[in-house]
Parts: sequence; structure tokens; C-alpha cells
Amino acid sequence: MSNKKLLPPKTGDLADWYTTIIQLADLSDYGPAKGTMIIKPYGYAIWELIQEAMNPLIKAKGVQNAYFPLFIPMSLLEKEANHVEGFAPELAIVTHGGGEKLEEPLVVRPTSETIMYNSFSKWLQSWRDLPIMMNQWNNVVRWEKRTMPFLRTSEFLWQEGHTAHVAHDEAADMQKWAMDMYAHIYRNFFALDGYVGYKSASERFAGADTTLTYESLMPSGKALQACTSHDLGQNFAKPFNITFQDKEGVDAFAWQTSWGLSTRSIGGLILAHGDDNGLRLPPKLAPTQIVIVPVRPEPELITYCKELVNQLQQAGTRAAIDDRDDESFGFRLNKAEVKGIPIILKIGSKELEQKLVTAKRRFDGYEEQISLDVIANKLSQSLDEIQAMMLKASQEYTTKNTREASDYDEFKRIQSEHKGFIKVYWNDNAAVEKQIKDETTATSRCMIEDGVSGTDFVTGEPATQQWIFAQSY
Amino acid sequence: MSNKKLLPPKTGDLADWYTTIIQLADLSDYGPAKGTMIIKPYGYAIWELIQEAMNPLIKAKGVQNAYFPLFIPMSLLEKEANHVEGFAPELAIVTHGGGEKLEEPLVVRPTSETIMYNSFSKWLQSWRDLPIMMNQWNNVVRWEKRTMPFLRTSEFLWQEGHTAHVAHDEAADMQKWAMDMYAHIYRNFFALDGYVGYKSASERFAGADTTLTYESLMPSGKALQACTSHDLGQNFAKPFNITFQDKEGVDAFAWQTSWGLSTRSIGGLILAHGDDNGLRLPPKLAPTQIVIVPVRPEPELITYCKELVNQLQQAGTRAAIDDRDDESFGFRLNKAEVKGIPIILKIGSKELEQKLVTAKRRFDGYEEQISLDVIANKLSQSLDEIQAMMLKASQEYTTKNTREASDYDEFKRIQSEHKGFIKVYWNDNAAVEKQIKDETTATSRCMIEDGVSGTDFVTGEPATQQWIFAQSY
Repeated sequence: MSNKKLLPPKTGDLADWYTTIIQLADLSDYGPAKGTMIIKPYGYAIWELIQEAMNPLIKAKGVQNAYFPLFIPMSLLEKEANHVEGFAPELAIVTHGGGEKLEEPLVVRPTSETIMYNSFSKWLQSWRDLPIMMNQWNNVVRWEKRTMPFLRTSEFLWQEGHTAHVAHDEAADMQKWAMDMYAHIYRNFFALDGYVGYKSASERFAGADTTLTYESLMPSGKALQACTSHDLGQNFAKPFNITFQDKEGVDAFAWQTSWGLSTRSIGGLILAHGDDNGLRLPPKLAPTQIVIVPVRPEPELITYCKELVNQLQQAGTRAAIDDRDDESFGFRLNKAEVKGIPIILKIGSKELEQKLVTAKRRFDGYEEQISLDVIANKLSQSLDEIQAMMLKASQEYTTKNTREASDYDEFKRIQSEHKGFIKVYWNDNAAVEKQIKDETTATSRCMIEDGVSGTDFVTGEPATQQWIFAQSY
Repeated sequence: MSNKKLLPPKTGDLADWYTTIIQLADLSDYGPAKGTMIIKPYGYAIWELIQEAMNPLIKAKGVQNAYFPLFIPMSLLEKEANHVEGFAPELAIVTHGGGEKLEEPLVVRPTSETIMYNSFSKWLQSWRDLPIMMNQWNNVVRWEKRTMPFLRTSEFLWQEGHTAHVAHDEAADMQKWAMDMYAHIYRNFFALDGYVGYKSASERFAGADTTLTYESLMPSGKALQACTSHDLGQNFAKPFNITFQDKEGVDAFAWQTSWGLSTRSIGGLILAHGDDNGLRLPPKLAPTQIVIVPVRPEPELITYCKELVNQLQQAGTRAAIDDRDDESFGFRLNKAEVKGIPIILKIGSKELEQKLVTAKRRFDGYEEQISLDVIANKLSQSLDEIQAMMLKASQEYTTKNTREASDYDEFKRIQSEHKGFIKVYWNDNAAVEKQIKDETTATSRCMIEDGVSGTDFVTGEPATQQWIFAQSY
């Protein structure tokens, strides 16, 4: 039985395609506790590649990795009013430990601002100790009623960066640096285009003055908030008493940022790039970039394939061989397609005789025969080309599905006909945003232009900002 | 004020030295919830180096990294009777999620056998699916009454490897492979000698048939169980129904192993190598291997130092410069000693003039002047020498503090006079072990020889095994 036949068309019920491909491609499985997910080796290898891409950039900025505890005393979480209000409905709470009822319940971290800033407050003395810049790769828990593998799970993995600075402009620069870094990773590793901009008052992080976001359009026409970066102002510094003596010897509150990217990003990667035949992974995040599939398990053929895989690995590509002798050639080819391996090499007696390989690009199905003496260079180049093609396709999809609406009627018509991104002039207003959400299920995704001149698409008043709206995950 | 003056002598109250150096060297801090620990960047960087050392070995063996959920339904944990009995007193329990009382309480994983094997059971069909070999780097929680940073904390970080095999001999080989890998890491990265052997019935892992351990002697004369590797037999396979169709088409239970090394290892690293002046890190696990300390913050001197640090980094060493202009030369030298940086380079006007550096080995205080034109090679070689010297010192300490006792009186006398390891002939017997523990606080650490011939040191009966006993952490 071919795996492919089990996969419903992506153009049909997308949610059905998504939950099926995640299992078929061995990315994840459901955990026994409600809303939890097992990240299987193939899915976790993608996460490791994301970590390998981000960690050097984070460290080069001078941000240091650290680890803060999983458990936050409830009283700490309650110190910042907006923050606890935002997270209260999603908390998992430990009430018993070591066989006894705890005096104070412990919250399983939904994010680590409060536990980290409690320490920042203890550690910070003078302006010389600033900036404090720390990052951690960890698990967080946010209780979810409706879950979907990777995209929305009660526990997920992420990195969370947290910084404290002497002045607001430094913190604002840091917030922007983090989003630039994320945008670089999304465009050049995920091959996922998106809009960068500020969140509205209703959509921003609980406790932030401003939130920058990367919003990427999924094939459902819904936006995925792919990561965020927050200017926390002094909202945490004040209740947590994060103060320092400045150069003049005066006590001052620090200015802070936090920023995170999670395993949710893998959900976007799957949704955006996959097709009716399975995953299509961009080469930079593909655990296996090239798979060699011999037609038959004949010793001479296998030897040829093994020499080839060594050669490709030595050239720095992630190459592997699939020579399982209990699966047919067709089944193994199909498996490679389902797993979204960027380049599939088919090798039979003709290829062996003529010292060549037949290479198929997973992304667009293009096949060519490549002579063995140029194979490593040719395929390295091909991986770069595939990476570029996938980003280009993503950019074209975003452009094609971004429409402008000058008034609310046009907005509603576009929403009902196309979904996708809608670009509008708008004055951020929570009451108006609630009305739009109630009537269309769309919300503002981010503000992409400031200091421009237009007419608010709902109220008709003058507006100086351009926003992107969409339904979202 | 010099940090060093705050440090009590290591030869005095060791626990006092330990908790002080951990704070002075910026390795960790106490978390707000009882028994939790913050791993600060300097401590976490050591953990990252341990991960970088182990991950390639784990992957080369064919073990794949994955991630399983934090929360284990209580009913799953209860499936293996010995296992739940062993862990019950240490569990942290989530009773509320998303604002509601949960129908079934969730256990915060103390280890992941039960949650992983629930999935292994689902995934495993045929002998062709075996071996299953997975590893995860994660956090676990074991409620502890008495805690100590790194050595015993309610939450800690570790890796846990879990495998399933067709036959017992394969599982036993895997158990041994894991312990060989750990011993390699301990000896060649931690520079920590130790005994490898099997645990007694009383000391082995709850749910294992046999447990292999690495036992390293700390300066207190107490042993640290540095990591373990378990042969789980079919103890979990049976209650979790982990079965496969074998080559003959018959259903069979799988044979399993699990093995782990945790942040506890960093506690051993600190305790074993430190001295009255602070940490002494082995070069392979030192986040900074060479620190350059300019005497004064003069521009010409700083330029000289920065060129040098570049040169050393390009030669593949982890080199840094400490040119803080608000701290005296003496303070910065002292800080480097407290932090245990293996090589400290002092650079003043004489060094600048004569194109040389003054290099001090942290381990033994040896100083020499090295000409600038051979510096990179010389220091790389010196780092290797320090690594070897530290292992040799650890081996000598273990040998010197391993004493033989032929009967229980001699055992008690050695215990009271020296602590340390005591080598005895012994027949593993839980009742006898309890008596020894009650009377001397020592327990068996591991069985180091089998198939030998001697007299049981307690009962006087013939014994074929040699064991190591000691007090332990």
C-alpha cells in the first residue's frame, strides 16, 4: 500500500491533509495527555536545524543562553497585572509535590518574563551590568481548548530572549534586531515570506508596549503569527523593581524586551510548502537533503549508491540512502516524496552502466540526468536553486493574495471571496477591531506602514497608518 | 573587594565552599520555588559543551533525538509497579489546567519511560522496526526535600536515551555502549575518573533488571553517582504491551534499555576540581579556555590584546579578553581564577615591548613567558596538557582513596578514618546492605568484578564478586 494514497488532496480539506501528512511523514504523534504532542525524530531534526541556524546569530549579538525554572510561584506571575490577566485562562497549575499539598500553587511557565525578571532585579546593580541579554531554549505550557499538532499545542518548545537596557532606544533597537533576525530565518531558511509590523492594542502581548510580528499567509488564506518581539517598556521593571544606578548615581528603572520563536513555526513550514504528494521541505531545513533510491537491492548497485552517498556527504550535503529490501522501488520513491526530501536520486542498471544518476527535484518534479563526475557540485547548486525557488513561490503567493480595500464593504467582499491578506488604512481602535472580528472573523495582523496618508476603512476618518488584516490561526 | 576573600577554604567546610563558589563564579542561582535552580550563562555554557560532546556520539550510534510531552497521565505512570513505587514520593502533580480541575491528574515527568513506551507500543509492528533508539534532552522534576545546586535539585536538565530491541543480548550491548560512552565523556571531557559497575538490588533503578553506573569520588570522600544505564529487560514491554512480529511471524515482547546523564554532572565537575581559589575547569568543558588580562586599559595594550585574542580564536581555542576599565588588574586576575579559566594571559608594557605574553596555568599555577610567534600552537598544546594533568590527578585521587577491607570491622574502621571507596568481596543482599547503611551510612556503589573468588566481608561466606562501597551524595 502506498502512503500517498492515504493522503487527501491538499486543495480539499486542508486541516485533514495537515493532520494526515504529519502522521504519514513521521513528524509527530499525539501525546496521551490532552493537547500534548510527541515530536518524532524527523520533526525534531527540523527543530534542531532551526536551532543551529538561530543560535549563532543570537550568540553573535552577545545574548547568552541560560536556563530558568519551569515552576513559577503564582504570586510572582501576578505581579504584572496585564500579564497575568492575559495568561490566566491558559495556566497549568501544580498543587502537590513530594506527596504533600503545596502552600503556594506553582504555575508551569507559559512564558518566563516573571521568573526571569525576579532574578534580573536581584542581579542588576549598576549601569555597568547592562545590557542583560539572555535566551533560553525550553518548553512552555499554555492550556488550549482546541489543539492542532505544531500550530497549537498545550506544550510547545521555543526560544525566549529577554533583555534589559539602560534606555528605551536601546530596547527598541533590540526589539527590532530580534525581528530582523527572525525575518532572516523565515525568508532564508523556512523560505516563507511574510509581513513584518506592529501589533494592534488588542493583539499585542500581555504586558508589552509594542509587539512586532512576522505574519505569513497559509494556503487556507489564514495568517500564521510566526514569532513575536516585544518592547516591554518599564511595565515589568516597575513591579519587579529592576533598577540600576545610572552614570550620575541616580536610581533608574531598566527598559526591557522579550522575543520568541516556537515549534509552531514547523506547522507553518508544513502547511505552506506541502502539496498533494506530501511535504516539500526547503533544503536548509531538510534533515535529509538528498536521498538515493536504488531500483533493486543488488550488491553492485548498492555499492555504487554507497560510494555516491559518501561523496555527497563529504561535499557537505545531508545525503542518505534508502535501500530497505522489504519495500518496493515505487514505495521508497513515494516515501521520499511524502517526506519532502528536496532531491531524490533514482539509480538503476542504466545509471550504473553509464555512470550517471537521475535526479528529481521534489519541489517542481523536474528530472534530469547528471554525470557522476560533476554530481556533488551540481547537486549543491541545485539545493541552493530549490531554496531560492521556494522563497520566490512564497513571495508570489503573498503578493497575489494581498488585496487592498478602501472601505469596509470592499473589505467584507474580499474576505468572503478570497480570504488572504487585506491592506487597509486604519486607526488602531480596540472597539472597531472587535466589531470587525465579530462580523468577519478577521483581525488586524500588523501595521506595515506609518506616517502615510489615507482614509480609515471603517470610520472614514483620516488615517496615517497602513495595516494588514486577515483571519488567523 | 576581591571575590576570592569571600570564598571559604575548600579544605574546610566543603558544602560551604561549594555553595559559595557556585554563586561567586556565576554558575547558578536559587530559583524562587523551593529546590529549583537558575542555571546562569556561565553554568549553562558548560552544559552546552557537554551536549556538544555527547550529541555526535549518540547520533553516530544511530540514536535519534526526539521530544515527548512533559505531562504523564497518572494511570500511565502506574503501569509498571516498581517504577511508580520508586518515584511516587518525588512527584509534582498538576491538578488544574485552563481554569478547571482536571479529570485525571498529570504527573510532571520524573523520567520518561512510561510516556515514551506508551508510544513505542503503538509504533512497533515488526522486527524490521527494531531497534527503536531515541534520545531526548529535556527537563525533569523530582521533588527533593534537601537540595543542593546542580547535585540535587527539584528540576534538572538531562538527556535520556531509550531503546527497544529484538533480543536481550542486543539490549545488554546497548546498555554497555551507553556506559562506555559516558565513561569516555567523564574521563576525556570532565577529567573525572570513576568506577564503572553494576548496582546492587537496593540501589538499582526502579524498573530495571540491572543498572550500570559511573561512580566518581568527591573531595568529601563521598561518591557521586554520575550517570546510569539500565537494562530494563521486558519489565516495561509487558505492561505496556510493546510487542513485535518476529522473523517467524510470532509475537514477541521487546527488550529495552534507558540511560541518562544530567546537570548533576556539573556539580561533580565543580566539587572534584575546584580549590581554595575557585573553580578549575578542564579545558574541554571550559566556556573560556584562555583569558587575556591587560594590566591597564591603555589603547596600545588593548590593541595588542585584541589582535592576540583573534589569533587564538582562529587557532580554534575559546579565547576572550577581560578589559573592563572599572576593575583593577588584580581584581580581573582573581575573577579569572575564581571562574577556573584554564589559561590566564597577563599582558603589560614589558610583554608589549618584547612581543610575548606571560601565561599562567590555573590548574597548578605554573607560569611561563611565551613568544608571540609561537603562542597559538603553544597554548593549544598547553590546553591538552592541562586536560591530561587533571585526569591524572583524578585517577591518582581515586586510587589513593580506594582501600580494601577483608571484614566488616576493617570496613568500619576505614569508614570512620578515611571515608572514600572501600573495595570488598560481597554477595549482593538487600538486608545486609540495609544493615551496613544503618550502621555506617555507606552503601554499595557498584560491582566492579564478577567471577572472582573471595570471602563476603560481612557474612564470611564465599563470594564471587568484588564491590565498591562508599557514602554517597
